[in-house]
Amino acid sequence: MGDESKRTGLEAIKYQRGKLQVLDQLRLPHEFVYDDVETCEESFDCIKAMRVRGAPAIAIVAALALAVELDHKKDGATSTEDLVKYIDKRLDYLMGSRPTAVDLSNAIKLLKKISQNAAHISPSADQSTACADVRLAYIEGAEKILEDDLTTNLAIGRYGAEYLRSLQKPHSVPIDETDELRYFTTSPPGTQGLPDQAYRKLSVLTHCNTGSLATSGHGTALGIIRSLHKMNYLDHAFCTETRPYNQGSRLTAFELVYEEIPSTLITDSMAGALFARRKTEKNIAAVIVGADRVARNGDTANKIGTYSLAILAKEHGIKFIVAAPTTSIDIETETGADIKIEDRVGTELTQISGAVVGKDGTVDVGNTARVAIADQRIGVWNPAFDVTPAKYIDAIITEKGEVLRYKDMFNFMDIMPEKFKALGIKAEGSNESGWGSNDGNGNGNGLRMVSSKASTNEDMQFQMDPVH
Amino acid sequence: MGDESKRTGLEAIKYQRGKLQVLDQLRLPHEFVYDDVETCEESFDCIKAMRVRGAPAIAIVAALALAVELDHKKDGATSTEDLVKYIDKRLDYLMGSRPTAVDLSNAIKLLKKISQNAAHISPSADQSTACADVRLAYIEGAEKILEDDLTTNLAIGRYGAEYLRSLQKPHSVPIDETDELRYFTTSPPGTQGLPDQAYRKLSVLTHCNTGSLATSGHGTALGIIRSLHKMNYLDHAFCTETRPYNQGSRLTAFELVYEEIPSTLITDSMAGALFARRKTEKNIAAVIVGADRVARNGDTANKIGTYSLAILAKEHGIKFIVAAPTTSIDIETETGADIKIEDRVGTELTQISGAVVGKDGTVDVGNTARVAIADQRIGVWNPAFDVTPAKYIDAIITEKGEVLRYKDMFNFMDIMPEKFKALGIKAEGSNESGWGSNDGNGNGNGLRMVSSKASTNEDMQFQMDPVH
Repeated sequence: MGDESKRTGLEAIKYQRGKLQVLDQLRLPHEFVYDDVETCEESFDCIKAMRVRGAPAIAIVAALALAVELDHKKDGATSTEDLVKYIDKRLDYLMGSRPTAVDLSNAIKLLKKISQNAAHISPSADQSTACADVRLAYIEGAEKILEDDLTTNLAIGRYGAEYLRSLQKPHSVPIDETDELRYFTTSPPGTQGLPDQAYRKLSVLTHCNTGSLATSGHGTALGIIRSLHKMNYLDHAFCTETRPYNQGSRLTAFELVYEEIPSTLITDSMAGALFARRKTEKNIAAVIVGADRVARNGDTANKIGTYSLAILAKEHGIKFIVAAPTTSIDIETETGADIKIEDRVGTELTQISGAVVGKDGTVDVGNTARVAIADQRIGVWNPAFDVTPAKYIDAIITEKGEVLRYKDMFNFMDIMPEKFKALGIKAEGSNESGWGSNDGNGNGNGLRMVSSKASTNEDMQFQMDPVH
Repeated sequence: MGDESKRTGLEAIKYQRGKLQVLDQLRLPHEFVYDDVETCEESFDCIKAMRVRGAPAIAIVAALALAVELDHKKDGATSTEDLVKYIDKRLDYLMGSRPTAVDLSNAIKLLKKISQNAAHISPSADQSTACADVRLAYIEGAEKILEDDLTTNLAIGRYGAEYLRSLQKPHSVPIDETDELRYFTTSPPGTQGLPDQAYRKLSVLTHCNTGSLATSGHGTALGIIRSLHKMNYLDHAFCTETRPYNQGSRLTAFELVYEEIPSTLITDSMAGALFARRKTEKNIAAVIVGADRVARNGDTANKIGTYSLAILAKEHGIKFIVAAPTTSIDIETETGADIKIEDRVGTELTQISGAVVGKDGTVDVGNTARVAIADQRIGVWNPAFDVTPAKYIDAIITEKGEVLRYKDMFNFMDIMPEKFKALGIKAEGSNESGWGSNDGNGNGNGLRMVSSKASTNEDMQFQMDPVH
């Protein structure tokens, strides 16, 4: 693992204009290798073979691959008409790498429009200059998708971390110096003078992988953990194995180790025991998960096992938090009952692949085997996702701020009014502005007051690496 | 897999006087091979290498190995004094195969006493005849341990099945013929005439392995499932994978397939989704688990993941049932807080072994590999067991009948009065006979009325294979 990557934080996608490198996730956690991606064909293979995964990451790798081609003038176009045709064709080709991916489809629609518009409005009569304008418009459009995703994740990370911090009660007795590692203060050392108040650092549990590996960087649920860590609020991160595909033990564990975040892996079955035995010791404050899709009422489809964790969290008085960009909130889907769950093949559960462990305990990273870990004859039920009803979710953290549950539901109208308006949807039983009225402590309509400035990157108190 | 074994039901231990064979569980589920065990050394190896597992099964294999030696007169003793010395020495040696096993320790104590008593009371002055008496006393004592365990399991199986049946409400509308498989009647076809009433068959979920492979046969929690199936009450059995050691996917799945019980494997993380989505469709009536130890108040230590399942069952209105012989009820342990939980090594969770799957999908049973299924650098928490508080448990099924929860606790005084008396323990706040008084429907003191006859093998309505 190179020192360079370590310095700049974990990136699944490394990009600078004209150069794209993608981390081969199939070789994780045992090997850490970037592949150069210079053509749409290489990008297609990368997505198809699952070397890159996660809906936002897939869209970005596709968009940027064509940006690299255009930067290298591989299109060979001599007129904007030919160039726009070339861009459309290449994007249609890339769509075939993962036809079901909504983020990819949205990115492609957007980039086609950008290119067409650029061709129409280019002020230059000279076709060569006009082509350069169109190429630049596409490249800047693709780069903006990368930047927007990162900005979104950083905002989610910060809102989530601040929300969890806000729930901590100040510590009332003086803190022993030996306890220092377990507490944070509202005025951290090296900032503005004496601490006002001390708070116990908090621990969280996360499920599946929602980190840098699935996005442009930082991540959603794991982004909140990164932010908690950078802001000095984090005591410990626990992650589940996430059967049957082990995204937790392979990818999230890798990210946590990589970032040197204090962390511990458990099996999915240990969550109840973890909460019962270690909630007080580690101040376990929340379970934080991502979302594949959030319905209009807040019901959330996510990796199988999420629903069980939500029930266990509730039973132990632990907050259950969903981290989701507003693009994952599908207001056309009324409730979780309308979300179809994919059943997958049984061998995903009864067999598993991994690097072979030698008799002396060493892991041979170059030698992968697939082994049977169950009676191969038994019937298997393997739903890929489950739906967690809104009533088990305490808050949904978006890039626009956190939305809190109100009367067993969530009201997203205030954070995405344009979408509600465009679709002509009014929340049921709502008054003009949503459900209920503010009760004076900011919880009334489920939306905590947030500064609109705070969702921009510049406003972050913590510094992310400049490369992002 | 031989047809013979199929006919006689699954047995981890095959025994007839002078001959002991033990199923090599390390080769399950891919291979089905019995090892002859003719000496205490072979028995020791069998236990040490985990080819046999489960506390009752270990005690039985140890006890019977010496019985085989004595039947073959391997002791070479010419006096009862020498013979008793030989027996003591061999039993002490066997204790070393699993020093922490309580069942093994109890069996050894009992068999030493039996041998000593036989030596004292043998009516024969002739040492050769007296030795034969002692040998026979030992052999019969060891055989009784096997028989008692089986009798206990059969009684637990039947009580559990009848308890679950008793909770089903009669079906009010006429049953379509196509529905027949989904219903049972109180007068089954081929017995006494017309059905009185039809009931929906029920489905259950079990965790870990508590079947024939862990006991003398039939099993405890899995014994209830076997009984439900034989009594025609069972619709479907679900079993968890049971991470990290996969006793569910390897052993329980094997037993369910072997017995041709309709069954489905899920990951531990799918239990919540199973209950939410399929409770009604499959009439999922109970989660049934075994117990490593039950405390005096009913708190139950069992395989990690049990506690989470108990919470999930409660949240979905599904009964949570513990199957435990009275020997597992430790009334000297007041509550679960007094039970120490063993933390095990992390590699149990981050690596797994199995038969290698070829590129064409075939499982090569002769070729086992160990693979890494997690980032090997992450910290791991791997508690082997968890404790389920009594308040989450609806009933504890013993060989003396089912004990129901009463005021968040269990009262075992009525089913094991001699133990309470011997230890001078009175239940807190109890009157003479236990807690509270009977409320007229048999639920008052938490003990459902049971026929004392019913706990003997002869009284079983369903027939087990004569070889048991």
